[in-house]
Amino acid sequence: MSANTSTTLASGFRYAALAAGIKASKKLDLTLVVGDQDLVAAGVYTQNLVRAASIDWCRGLTPSASIRAVVVNSGNANACTGEIGKQNNRRLAESVGQQIGCRAEQVLVLSTGVIGKQLPMATIEAAMPRLTQGLQFDHDSYDRAADGITTTDNARKTAGEVFEIGGVTYCINVMAKGAGMIGPNMATMLAVVTTDFPLSAGAAQSAIVRAANHSFNRISVEGHTSTNDALVFLSSAKKDSDRLGSSAADIELFSQHLDQACLRCAKLIPADGEGATHLIQISVKGTDSDAAADTIARAVANSALVKTAAHGNDPNWGRIVSAAGYAGVAFEADQVSLEINGTKIFANGAPLDFDAAKLSQSMKSNFDLSLDLRVGSGQGQTIHYTSDLTMDYVRFNADYHT
Amino acid sequence: MSANTSTTLASGFRYAALAAGIKASKKLDLTLVVGDQDLVAAGVYTQNLVRAASIDWCRGLTPSASIRAVVVNSGNANACTGEIGKQNNRRLAESVGQQIGCRAEQVLVLSTGVIGKQLPMATIEAAMPRLTQGLQFDHDSYDRAADGITTTDNARKTAGEVFEIGGVTYCINVMAKGAGMIGPNMATMLAVVTTDFPLSAGAAQSAIVRAANHSFNRISVEGHTSTNDALVFLSSAKKDSDRLGSSAADIELFSQHLDQACLRCAKLIPADGEGATHLIQISVKGTDSDAAADTIARAVANSALVKTAAHGNDPNWGRIVSAAGYAGVAFEADQVSLEINGTKIFANGAPLDFDAAKLSQSMKSNFDLSLDLRVGSGQGQTIHYTSDLTMDYVRFNADYHT
Repeated sequence: MSANTSTTLASGFRYAALAAGIKASKKLDLTLVVGDQDLVAAGVYTQNLVRAASIDWCRGLTPSASIRAVVVNSGNANACTGEIGKQNNRRLAESVGQQIGCRAEQVLVLSTGVIGKQLPMATIEAAMPRLTQGLQFDHDSYDRAADGITTTDNARKTAGEVFEIGGVTYCINVMAKGAGMIGPNMATMLAVVTTDFPLSAGAAQSAIVRAANHSFNRISVEGHTSTNDALVFLSSAKKDSDRLGSSAADIELFSQHLDQACLRCAKLIPADGEGATHLIQISVKGTDSDAAADTIARAVANSALVKTAAHGNDPNWGRIVSAAGYAGVAFEADQVSLEINGTKIFANGAPLDFDAAKLSQSMKSNFDLSLDLRVGSGQGQTIHYTSDLTMDYVRFNADYHT
Repeated sequence: MSANTSTTLASGFRYAALAAGIKASKKLDLTLVVGDQDLVAAGVYTQNLVRAASIDWCRGLTPSASIRAVVVNSGNANACTGEIGKQNNRRLAESVGQQIGCRAEQVLVLSTGVIGKQLPMATIEAAMPRLTQGLQFDHDSYDRAADGITTTDNARKTAGEVFEIGGVTYCINVMAKGAGMIGPNMATMLAVVTTDFPLSAGAAQSAIVRAANHSFNRISVEGHTSTNDALVFLSSAKKDSDRLGSSAADIELFSQHLDQACLRCAKLIPADGEGATHLIQISVKGTDSDAAADTIARAVANSALVKTAAHGNDPNWGRIVSAAGYAGVAFEADQVSLEINGTKIFANGAPLDFDAAKLSQSMKSNFDLSLDLRVGSGQGQTIHYTSDLTMDYVRFNADYHT
């Protein structure tokens, strides 16, 4: 694990992680984030109909102003595990609650890993006292917690923001895991945001939905929504419900920082794809709405032909423009223009003369690849991120067996 | 080219193909299908907003009862070619019309190949007399015509049906091209249906839309709709408009044969994918409607994780079930069951005990792979076909440069 969390940590939390024995690899597989007091909590969860026990559990508990902890196990998704899976999810929350002194319903649970297998509850419950005894408020513990939620990630994924609002300094810390292009069973994305900015549960929910739409919902790898995807938000700044809820202007400022922190962390996911040789940034402008731009960007990002062309450093405007064309958003084909790495190669619906060899060399020389697509004169716009499709991706995902 | 058209040919057509010089490879690249008399014609065309000149041309001319010919050029898609591209498309139709004695508006045009390049009109027009002089009604000419519409296909794609309705024998012949998993610029699908069954232009249009939904719309390779996809239907049985239009019962019988012929031909496309090691048949049952089953099947067929698992002969129910879960169709997760190659491995929302090694061996031993998914007790159902995702696919599509 290379990256380090240089940002100041939000106060009011303690972190711990250990290798409980859920993963056969004996790597860290159990992470705990605990509030010194009750936490304001909100969340955004997978829309997949086939979902883990943890998702239903968390969805039922957030938004809330009385959450105390989040426990994350990696190595086992506890999905497609039926009634026993639900009971085990509750036992996991109860086990934390017993240690830190709260009800099970004050403990959020996140799971990631193989699906269709029951959690090794005895192993987990045996490890719980040691986990809670290890809780600390320091960078090392935070980094271990961030490592503990990873599965096939090549690197720890964290991002943070420190900022002043109304003369007070606040912090936002984001830890995420995302197997990116790999994801043996599937590419589950988990993220935990911790902050000391004060806001109500309702405002927290609005802020995290907005941040998700500006960050984690703008990355894609293979377009496969997992059974366990979750983004959980926690604020330690709950003191007195009357004092909660900063002004609308303050929340807007906070939201901008939250969006930024989440986006920086989200971009680490496609960048970490197994075998990925490019992080592809897809900008779409000129639609009637931002949502329409999102739809086009998603079609381009999920095109295997675009992703293989990127891998081959091929400025293949045809694949990009035609992917936009089938996205389901109306536009005039003769108003389409496209730049790759800043070179305009397509305008008014037709290709321009350009030095393909030079542009291909620019693609080859850079890990970051930018596609800038304009489809009209509307004000709608977005930016999405994905990784390229490589032989290593296929090899990894074909060779991995359940 | 290995396959041969064993089916009897529908009467009333002549076929020719030659190497005009559009392809650098000097392979067949210009195909002509001409009716002895006016033809009843109908068509289904790409929904892509970025589309070839030929698509707009054909869409404006069908359905019709006065078409005389279809000319197909391969090696150049004439897409993203602006006003000159439109003029060239018309010149192509005019050039055929001059040779066979009809108006340009009686000649349908289909194009496939690289996009963004202008057609070499002088070359094509110079070849036209020789092309029309070669028109014949025989199997060799039909097969050459079928070869002439291919691009990166490894094999000719034809299918036919011979059947009796009301004591009269009729034929349906289908030729198609589809680059399957390869498709350097994109995987354009073209198909031309010829028959001697009598029906009106309106009935022909209804029949070909239905057949497309039962065949070519149920195959997918990378889910990338091309700028040039087209399915054209021609009947030579136009003699007298008063006698046209067989009874509803007769048309239903005809439609069943048309569906079958189109499906057999359509399945050849994913089966021919570059590097494909499996033709995956995805059956979905138990939805409220067939359309809902189509939506789920399409999500499974387009999942890179499902397609790589298939390549790895991995009975990975998790990837399949979760792809169904994000398709956007409501169902109860605990009613889901799945069979792979006839072995039930998932039921009531949870995995069953099964011999994974044995099932993997069965997958490895067979080119055909069947996934049978049930998501409820509704009457909706469908069957889709796709190919697996292999390293050869990535290699081919990354290495090909525009």
